[in-house]
Amino acid sequence: MSSVTRVEVLNTGTELLFGSVINTHLSFLAQQLFPIGLRVQRQSTIPDGDSIRDAITESASRCDVILVTGGLGPTTDDITREIVSEMTGRPLRYDDSILQKISKRFKQRGITMTDRTARQAFVPEGAAVLPNDHGTAPGLHIEARNGIPHLFLFPGPPRELRPMFTTYALPILRSLAGKQDLHARTYRTTGLGESQVERIVGNRLLAIPGLELGYCARMGEVDVRVIGSRTAVESAAQLIEDELAPYIVTTEEKDLEDVVVELLKANKATLAIAESCTGGLLANRITDVPGASLVFVEGNVTYSNDAKMRTLDVSAELLSNVGAVSEEVARAMAEGALKRSGATYALSTTGIAGPDGGTDQKPVGTVFIGLASRGSATLIEKEFFPTDRPSFKRICTQHALEMLRRKILGI
Amino acid sequence: MSSVTRVEVLNTGTELLFGSVINTHLSFLAQQLFPIGLRVQRQSTIPDGDSIRDAITESASRCDVILVTGGLGPTTDDITREIVSEMTGRPLRYDDSILQKISKRFKQRGITMTDRTARQAFVPEGAAVLPNDHGTAPGLHIEARNGIPHLFLFPGPPRELRPMFTTYALPILRSLAGKQDLHARTYRTTGLGESQVERIVGNRLLAIPGLELGYCARMGEVDVRVIGSRTAVESAAQLIEDELAPYIVTTEEKDLEDVVVELLKANKATLAIAESCTGGLLANRITDVPGASLVFVEGNVTYSNDAKMRTLDVSAELLSNVGAVSEEVARAMAEGALKRSGATYALSTTGIAGPDGGTDQKPVGTVFIGLASRGSATLIEKEFFPTDRPSFKRICTQHALEMLRRKILGI
Repeated sequence: MSSVTRVEVLNTGTELLFGSVINTHLSFLAQQLFPIGLRVQRQSTIPDGDSIRDAITESASRCDVILVTGGLGPTTDDITREIVSEMTGRPLRYDDSILQKISKRFKQRGITMTDRTARQAFVPEGAAVLPNDHGTAPGLHIEARNGIPHLFLFPGPPRELRPMFTTYALPILRSLAGKQDLHARTYRTTGLGESQVERIVGNRLLAIPGLELGYCARMGEVDVRVIGSRTAVESAAQLIEDELAPYIVTTEEKDLEDVVVELLKANKATLAIAESCTGGLLANRITDVPGASLVFVEGNVTYSNDAKMRTLDVSAELLSNVGAVSEEVARAMAEGALKRSGATYALSTTGIAGPDGGTDQKPVGTVFIGLASRGSATLIEKEFFPTDRPSFKRICTQHALEMLRRKILGI
Repeated sequence: MSSVTRVEVLNTGTELLFGSVINTHLSFLAQQLFPIGLRVQRQSTIPDGDSIRDAITESASRCDVILVTGGLGPTTDDITREIVSEMTGRPLRYDDSILQKISKRFKQRGITMTDRTARQAFVPEGAAVLPNDHGTAPGLHIEARNGIPHLFLFPGPPRELRPMFTTYALPILRSLAGKQDLHARTYRTTGLGESQVERIVGNRLLAIPGLELGYCARMGEVDVRVIGSRTAVESAAQLIEDELAPYIVTTEEKDLEDVVVELLKANKATLAIAESCTGGLLANRITDVPGASLVFVEGNVTYSNDAKMRTLDVSAELLSNVGAVSEEVARAMAEGALKRSGATYALSTTGIAGPDGGTDQKPVGTVFIGLASRGSATLIEKEFFPTDRPSFKRICTQHALEMLRRKILGI
């Protein structure tokens, strides 16, 4: 049997096409597949119901494995199981052990089981059941047969799909994939535009045989991603590290908060945070990193002027003279947070996220970011990021984390 | 000319299939299209480069409009413009006004323009240019001709695409769509399982002619979504509101934080937050709501025990006797935040997000949530959400916001 290489993802869910839910399945599945040498070559989102039939037929001619999410639940719009049974000529068989498991789960939670629930206990003949440790509908693996590739069916809720995928589906996929020579490296750079990055390294990277090259530009950042055999990726890595060193923030898809927490740990340093306009996002990003408690002392979301005075000791006079969105208040906030927390570093943000609250002097998008440190002068940067409210908060925190990274590294 | 109704979205971007970036385009575009009576019937993600050709050909037979994102940048993997020019038989023409605009933008930012940048100034003959007010590559609208539907090409970065879409593409799409009788309503419920919700309203909703019905289950929440003509949606709404009233949290896709901020405003009440395990996410969700500053006084992310003592006046004795993750500390945190802030309500969270730090008595996933209020007893709820770290943080904040919503409403 030859190894599988071509994977497609089919997400069913009217709510995804309706826009009320963001599809995070593709990102999760792709990141899980890559280390076993598999890549997603295409992904489609289709409505609940009958469209899954055509979608599987189309994908079947292009790939070896289809990962299907959604449509396994108890309600009338969940018919993935039934359609797949019909398409693969595997009649549905009742599996009592599944119903027993669901029934036990319901009892523990004091929920009454309805007739519909029993639908989840039917399994296409010969399919392997992937247990659902976090919900009711089990997943299924149906081996390739009669021109239909390997099908893996997963429940839609991420908290059910994710552990099911890593625990039960990944080992099967690993054995199907065999040994693949597939490697990747992503360099996140800052300080250069996309076309400048390409001018420096582009032609020489394109000349490496078998290397796949990609760029991805975001606000203030450009990712350079290289994919290929170990040899190709190593050659590319050397070139990129030689030529772009001062601009590289992270490699290996790490987020900036991961890098900052690592640097703080390595330097036995601690961090306090005083946020106004970023409203807790900066603390939230830091505390998304496992083990953040070793370096993060406290965060203060001082949204009101009263809170700035009470918690960070910003003076009422300063607030009334220069306003909360000012270099002076950013400085006082960072220094206040440093003092009260005893931390090595303190970051502060104060700005106008909008949509309201802007003035001619300080339009929506204005922000001051402060960084106070033990034993050196407080740094303040003024920036202007006129965009929507969530993006503004995000970009401000990105900038603050990058200030801290450079400070710790002394660059 | 008949109105367009069938829309597909094609997202190009190897980074999306690689999993390093989450696709937020579909959600944005779908939410923008619905109010003008258009829905996305299908979406696909394809790699950068040549695959766009096959993808457009496939979609062409199924729809009236294709919205394409990505592949308009200056680098070698950006070739959407060239392929579309070839497929539609519209040769590329150089448009000097585009290059002038890019050049001006670069000068303002002190960036040197490279040769590659000029590629972005080429436009398929007869295409309408959609100006890019937040970046370099303009978007394009190419009218339907020779079996290829209307094509709209957008740059990949959301901060460029979004304003371009609403300002320049939406008016064109509105006139193409004409007048459509398309309405929707989503009810977010809590306290019932998916199959229980269906048992109460499912059959009667299915009996409403022309109504499309969908369910979406999340941790502790079930959405019921109805789509159809005004008449159908109004009948459905009445039935759902009659039968599910005590379980309905929000309608119209509002997030719980929006509802909570509205309720606080309506009751002239204010909120303070004391977070440990949720690490700033609760404050972040509240401050994502425009106008949150009217009701949100301050948040304290007291991650360390020192911070809990210093900022919230939690006693050292209590911390050493019962531990930071306990009913007593949740209570002391909420009451400490209420006292220091002078707010009407104070929410607190303390728990074990994991992956490390769990014990037999208090395994990873344990959380205590506190709600202190002026003039009534502090409420504490103990919950157990064993999942990954970001989901844990999210679910804890959801639970905290729901406690506050019920408290304000007295239900």
